[in-house]
Amino acid sequence: MHVREFQDMMRQIYFHRDSERGATGTYEWLMEEVEELGEAIKGGDTQAIKDEFADVLAWLASLANVVHIDLEKAALKKYNHHCPKCKKERCNCPL
Amino acid sequence: MHVREFQDMMRQIYFHRDSERGATGTYEWLMEEVEELGEAIKGGDTQAIKDEFADVLAWLASLANVVHIDLEKAALKKYNHHCPKCKKERCNCPL
Repeated sequence: MHVREFQDMMRQIYFHRDSERGATGTYEWLMEEVEELGEAIKGGDTQAIKDEFADVLAWLASLANVVHIDLEKAALKKYNHHCPKCKKERCNCPL
Repeated sequence: MHVREFQDMMRQIYFHRDSERGATGTYEWLMEEVEELGEAIKGGDTQAIKDEFADVLAWLASLANVVHIDLEKAALKKYNHHCPKCKKERCNCPL
């Protein structure tokens, strides 16, 4: 599924709620999901890790909907088969 | 671009660095990018917001590569045109 289609799907399921919650509230939920992803990785349960990755992507798409950003377009503009800093296809930036 | 293709592109550009940094270090970078996204949204500069969305998606994909999770598969298993909690196509969960 395209990133844009996933974002559209999130809009279909959640935009009526996300738009009421607003950018700040939706961002706070995203942050909470990122923290849960960190805990899941520490815990090592593969299914929990998969679920938390799903949640972070879902809330990132929801937040993009609330602030009217096309996540796929933004991502491909910055990362288009090369590192945006060193411009290499295999990043060679100084560590 | 499919979520999986984006994740593969991140692997091509960054996996040699991400895998050395490991899951904890890559997670810390993701968290930093999420914080920068929050600052950008507060700041209100559209280009900065787009750049930070790009970075969060990029680091989420990098982290998924490090812990060997297929981000698209995980996301579509949990969010497949309905809310995973109330099972509705338009979420109707109690607030």
